[in-house]
Amino acid sequence: VLFTYLHLAPAPELTRALIDSGAICIAYETVETDDRRLPLLAPMSEVAGRLAPQMGAHALERPQGGRGMLLGGVAGVAPAKVVVLGGGIVGYNAALIAVGMQADVWILDRSIDRMRELDPMLDGRATIVMSTTLEVERALEDADLVIGAVLVPGARAPKLVTREMLGLMRPGAVLVDVAIDQGGCFETSHPTTHSDPTYVVDGVVHYCVANMPGAVPISSTRALTNATLPYLELLADRGFERAIGLAPALARGVSVVDGQVTSQPVAEALGLPFVPLAELVGEAA
Amino acid sequence: VLFTYLHLAPAPELTRALIDSGAICIAYETVETDDRRLPLLAPMSEVAGRLAPQMGAHALERPQGGRGMLLGGVAGVAPAKVVVLGGGIVGYNAALIAVGMQADVWILDRSIDRMRELDPMLDGRATIVMSTTLEVERALEDADLVIGAVLVPGARAPKLVTREMLGLMRPGAVLVDVAIDQGGCFETSHPTTHSDPTYVVDGVVHYCVANMPGAVPISSTRALTNATLPYLELLADRGFERAIGLAPALARGVSVVDGQVTSQPVAEALGLPFVPLAELVGEAA
Amino acid sequence: VLFTYLHLAPAPELTRALIDSGAICIAYETVETDDRRLPLLAPMSEVAGRLAPQMGAHALERPQGGRGMLLGGVAGVAPAKVVVLGGGIVGYNAALIAVGMQADVWILDRSIDRMRELDPMLDGRATIVMSTTLEVERALEDADLVIGAVLVPGARAPKLVTREMLGLMRPGAVLVDVAIDQGGCFETSHPTTHSDPTYVVDGVVHYCVANMPGAVPISSTRALTNATLPYLELLADRGFERAIGLAPALARGVSVVDGQVTSQPVAEALGLPFVPLAELVGEAA
Amino acid sequence: VLFTYLHLAPAPELTRALIDSGAICIAYETVETDDRRLPLLAPMSEVAGRLAPQMGAHALERPQGGRGMLLGGVAGVAPAKVVVLGGGIVGYNAALIAVGMQADVWILDRSIDRMRELDPMLDGRATIVMSTTLEVERALEDADLVIGAVLVPGARAPKLVTREMLGLMRPGAVLVDVAIDQGGCFETSHPTTHSDPTYVVDGVVHYCVANMPGAVPISSTRALTNATLPYLELLADRGFERAIGLAPALARGVSVVDGQVTSQPVAEALGLPFVPLAELVGEAA
Amino acid sequence: VLFTYLHLAPAPELTRALIDSGAICIAYETVETDDRRLPLLAPMSEVAGRLAPQMGAHALERPQGGRGMLLGGVAGVAPAKVVVLGGGIVGYNAALIAVGMQADVWILDRSIDRMRELDPMLDGRATIVMSTTLEVERALEDADLVIGAVLVPGARAPKLVTREMLGLMRPGAVLVDVAIDQGGCFETSHPTTHSDPTYVVDGVVHYCVANMPGAVPISSTRALTNATLPYLELLADRGFERAIGLAPALARGVSVVDGQVTSQPVAEALGLPFVPLAELVGEAA
Amino acid sequence: VLFTYLHLAPAPELTRALIDSGAICIAYETVETDDRRLPLLAPMSEVAGRLAPQMGAHALERPQGGRGMLLGGVAGVAPAKVVVLGGGIVGYNAALIAVGMQADVWILDRSIDRMRELDPMLDGRATIVMSTTLEVERALEDADLVIGAVLVPGARAPKLVTREMLGLMRPGAVLVDVAIDQGGCFETSHPTTHSDPTYVVDGVVHYCVANMPGAVPISSTRALTNATLPYLELLADRGFERAIGLAPALARGVSVVDGQVTSQPVAEALGLPFVPLAELVGEAA
Repeated sequence: VLFTYLHLAPAPELTRALIDSGAICIAYETVETDDRRLPLLAPMSEVAGRLAPQMGAHALERPQGGRGMLLGGVAGVAPAKVVVLGGGIVGYNAALIAVGMQADVWILDRSIDRMRELDPMLDGRATIVMSTTLEVERALEDADLVIGAVLVPGARAPKLVTREMLGLMRPGAVLVDVAIDQGGCFETSHPTTHSDPTYVVDGVVHYCVANMPGAVPISSTRALTNATLPYLELLADRGFERAIGLAPALARGVSVVDGQVTSQPVAEALGLPFVPLAELVGEAA
Repeated sequence: VLFTYLHLAPAPELTRALIDSGAICIAYETVETDDRRLPLLAPMSEVAGRLAPQMGAHALERPQGGRGMLLGGVAGVAPAKVVVLGGGIVGYNAALIAVGMQADVWILDRSIDRMRELDPMLDGRATIVMSTTLEVERALEDADLVIGAVLVPGARAPKLVTREMLGLMRPGAVLVDVAIDQGGCFETSHPTTHSDPTYVVDGVVHYCVANMPGAVPISSTRALTNATLPYLELLADRGFERAIGLAPALARGVSVVDGQVTSQPVAEALGLPFVPLAELVGEAA
Repeated sequence: VLFTYLHLAPAPELTRALIDSGAICIAYETVETDDRRLPLLAPMSEVAGRLAPQMGAHALERPQGGRGMLLGGVAGVAPAKVVVLGGGIVGYNAALIAVGMQADVWILDRSIDRMRELDPMLDGRATIVMSTTLEVERALEDADLVIGAVLVPGARAPKLVTREMLGLMRPGAVLVDVAIDQGGCFETSHPTTHSDPTYVVDGVVHYCVANMPGAVPISSTRALTNATLPYLELLADRGFERAIGLAPALARGVSVVDGQVTSQPVAEALGLPFVPLAELVGEAA
Repeated sequence: VLFTYLHLAPAPELTRALIDSGAICIAYETVETDDRRLPLLAPMSEVAGRLAPQMGAHALERPQGGRGMLLGGVAGVAPAKVVVLGGGIVGYNAALIAVGMQADVWILDRSIDRMRELDPMLDGRATIVMSTTLEVERALEDADLVIGAVLVPGARAPKLVTREMLGLMRPGAVLVDVAIDQGGCFETSHPTTHSDPTYVVDGVVHYCVANMPGAVPISSTRALTNATLPYLELLADRGFERAIGLAPALARGVSVVDGQVTSQPVAEALGLPFVPLAELVGEAA
Repeated sequence: VLFTYLHLAPAPELTRALIDSGAICIAYETVETDDRRLPLLAPMSEVAGRLAPQMGAHALERPQGGRGMLLGGVAGVAPAKVVVLGGGIVGYNAALIAVGMQADVWILDRSIDRMRELDPMLDGRATIVMSTTLEVERALEDADLVIGAVLVPGARAPKLVTREMLGLMRPGAVLVDVAIDQGGCFETSHPTTHSDPTYVVDGVVHYCVANMPGAVPISSTRALTNATLPYLELLADRGFERAIGLAPALARGVSVVDGQVTSQPVAEALGLPFVPLAELVGEAA
Repeated sequence: VLFTYLHLAPAPELTRALIDSGAICIAYETVETDDRRLPLLAPMSEVAGRLAPQMGAHALERPQGGRGMLLGGVAGVAPAKVVVLGGGIVGYNAALIAVGMQADVWILDRSIDRMRELDPMLDGRATIVMSTTLEVERALEDADLVIGAVLVPGARAPKLVTREMLGLMRPGAVLVDVAIDQGGCFETSHPTTHSDPTYVVDGVVHYCVANMPGAVPISSTRALTNATLPYLELLADRGFERAIGLAPALARGVSVVDGQVTSQPVAEALGLPFVPLAELVGEAA
């Protein structure tokens, strides 16, 4: 049983090899609970969210190409303005750290219920406003750091900031695109690496490192292990068939079994025949 | 009237030029209040203190050579341990930001009165203990980030961490030496630059950038201007002689007047004749 | 109608008497909501959780046999380390008070979702980590006070700390076993009383008082009355049959009706015939 | 012995009557400690400071002529911006309440030391910046409520906002002038009353009620009594001469003794002969 | 399509006109989610809740007829006691602001689960107790300000404070009845206006302004727009029929279609024929 | 050189032995700074202050004879009322812990300046009022726990609560007298021990253990060592005579030198000749 991140859709050779191996292959990224949460992606979202202000603060330093602002100001000097687009798990964690660094933090979200929840969670220390194109534009005008935290599970992130809107921003302001692994939420984003993390478009610094949690492997690995352990224990204690019966979330992550592709999106993407998991497990049982 | 940072002691040519110029030269770094505070250095201490956890967090990233730890952990994953040596203006600001980044923060200081003051200032969120060699060694053992914030005004910083003590630390742990401009408070520190900020000794990453506030010039300049403005106004409104009469702190900063060196340390360092300010001003008046 | 704590399973004579009495007997401890919460046990869990650090702090005093540590330290002196095993209703309340007493608090739990919830509830002031045997062992090594707060509704508490693991602990450290009414979560726990609350095993002080809330009857009684009042009002206003129809939680608590045992566990434990409540109520109606 | 607020300088008849009465007259408002604090004015400053956001919030309501803004916003709606000019005892108390009402609070002050002190006192929840004409103008542009809290003991308040600067402000924005009893710190301020508290200049609502603490006499009286009580006890227990010997602050408040004016400012204002207190007390003793 | 607050039941002429117009009429106040929340009323509840302590503090001023108390006290002077009846969305927001104004805040509610939720949301700063007639009476005795925040969706508010109970209260104490739009939760309440907001019964000041949010139209309008926007977008993007299919909450708000009344309560109140929405939409499709 | 607590005044034999020994004897308890603080007593005041609510909470338990109240209440149940008499170092620490235990905390003090300082230190979470006999009586009426924290350095504590006033209190309420080592601040206090800590007078439980810090020797010893270390280092590095020259505070603690008593109070208490330290040191030098 292979249980890890697989990302098979764009990888025909890897998929072929897994089919030939006869192994049972379960993809972390498609394990999904009944209420549509992705429990093995969430820990990485938390890590990336908490890293975002740290990465942004670094990019804001003058020698890194930024405006040269201290996130928290000092006595008599106003703090930087940090705008977090999206108040989900990434956005909450980004805001928590940015508030802690004493920045002036704004969160833009579209769910009133979520905004009501966030206010006491952040102890009233961030300004939380309804996200509209107008509000985004206003926020960009005097933002020092913008953190794109809009992720739609299983879909490409929406483009909240267009190239044209960069013209509203201050020279040396910084964009951090935490949604880059899903295509990015700024029009001008393209993936970068930890060794060369930023580039400049229209005077605005872009930080778009793919796999941000890779910067802190000790913390990321522990966070991921905490999330996968219950599933691993289930697989080890009960065996594959009992495990997927007890944990439907796990069943949703099964991609390849007995040489057959059991994930419809993967099958479609690669032009391979799709076999529903239920048929194979029934046979095996 | 020249009013700026001068640092003349190690600069004979600059001093000679100022003597020849006939200008009145006042050095920011020696302006000193009656209660021995250095009001034009304090803002830079605040900026450097607030930058220290940001710089340390960055150096802790694996691609930067650090252990690969997130300062604040995430749900289920313990935070990094940040040890701040010294609870003065630098140490308080460093601890404030590190606490805000959700780290497990320890402050070591030697003044009980100061420690009593710090506890409510930090809302009880940092562990504050008496600094002894034993406590420093214990703290190093499981520290992820150590911030050296021990500055003695007008003197070389004491060496709190010897080379031998590095052996106690975890590989990839990070030292940030905020006292580097005064010689550094770690034995193994030597000045580095923003373009090449770190080096490794015995597996421990050293961040020892001289002039840390230079990374955030917008914030630093404002902070400095806030502090110098009252003296500038005094000089502009009342003229030099009235100004130093009204502000003895300013008088202590006067280094060169009418071609004479009026700072005893500078005179001694450069082998030049020393003339007390009072004599020259008396003459002029 | 008798509506109180009954605990009939181990009490054949009491059960017999209730059967003979012809009374309708409803047991607080088995009233259970649709989502499997036990609303008449929860207030006692809150009280016990809030008492636990108070009891533990007292047991830590030297004259009581403990190490002689102040939970919160003072300026320059590190606080005690308090480890709370379990982050449910007991654990949250225990941690809240321990944090308030300025201790260094660690919570070990196994649910990531619960840990995400606890962090803002405790304002980030406790370190919350995934509970594994390894983490428990590490936590025991330098713990001053360990609070066992692992309760599984309707089941014996798991043994998280074995006798062997006591050897990891400091002499004079204290264990408080809040789960003692369900068998205790330390292997070496056995019930004690408020008049003789502690005993020592392998140098570790054990506090295992059964019915902890009995120490604060004013607060406990109010808490319990708050929880039972809605059911009492329902019984008084609507009568028994309408009440159990309107509140299925109440129906689950009915143990004896018309001389018949309507609780299957009680019937099984005592070898008595079991009659489903529905039959009896149908008849009566 | 008459011990109360006197304000004799503009009151020749009252002064004459006191001279004729032969009473010893001590004025609350001129009792002054060695470090130049006015302990019998401070409680009124606290009360006025805490009232200011309440009065301002009321004036901001549309039916009162204001913009119609809620100080704290709600979920998804940004809060009002409150600008507090001056971070002394009035300004701190005004900011504390405005922060508590969930407003976006800015404090402008000119003392870096005071700003360093205020930041932890307000838990980092207000933005504190150096006050310059430029910063005041910037702050006015998007302020909803401006609280003038600049009081210079014993002098007329400086005019921080000129009539011309009103043009920068939003229609319906509100000014609250807490310094009105000392002439006001806005050029367009003139005293109003609790029964008709506001008027409009250039579209900006002015609240300039003299004696603001009069709105809450229960609280104000207690606060004042707390401050005067130690002096009253001293007068009652030791008699006038011993009391002023033991409490030099009290001596500074003595205005009329034995038919002689012992306050130089009062004597000058009214063209009466001035007799130093020391002479009269010496004679009497 | 007309989409706004309609309140047709007491308005036969308006209803007739809408019927004649042929328009599709959707009433904000009856849009209702599956879990019985009223999403277009909630923002107004938040605004009213946050306004309540502001209105109450104003009414407590002596010139307004109140006792003359400062909500937050000052150093050495105890704060006012604010009692909030009901801990729902109105009560939470009222308590949040009252706590921020430094008052001594008590919340009385009847749901233990809600009380458990409120405690960390308010950071433990309000005293939260079970609401019983006895507790209400006790609370009234030394309350300075009582905020009635008990709203039952779609029903008249219960009368928690009778006329007789006013006799328990201090002269000049203040009642603010946020439930006035639903009949009020004090027996002696009757609606007032922003221009004449209060009246006195038995020495107790009553503030019972209908439509409190009307005092702050900028904030209220934004809050309302945030809530209605998603429904507006749905109507605009998909058309009426698709919209009500996708959003059952919206369908519940439809009152008049094609000249037919589709709201049963409205039809009954006005003696008009009722036609279920499903029939009309089926026809149209 | 003997440097420890001596308490010689009531100990003629000990004093005689020290005189005969020829040792230099310095008493911790009389080391006193220029501003009249007692730096070697302060740490014990901190420890005792932090212990007081813990001891009081324990005494409030029913099995210990108290009312049976939980300090912090639980959801729906009001907390206990804790009254702290005195807001100095003991009182602040007692209030900090009592607030943390979620009690309803009142501090009574007589210094407005100190009360202003305490409010932000405790984050506004305690009610701080001016102490008068009337306020003390009022506070006693509904107090569950009263902590006497009124210590006057070098003098007997004032009796704030008379025997008669006990009649105002609830049966089972608790008094903790932290001032017992200086005679106690309740009329009915007499010293008790850790093994038999409480007794009852007029239904009120008294906790009056002398040397409270003895309960937590690990914390107390560290706290004391932190305070004495600088003096010890001075004595070790510079020798006795240089040390007392450099640290006048230390000189004030010298009680016996060269067989002569150098502490006037000790000499007077025991009828021994007094020799000023200056004479002896002068001779020796």
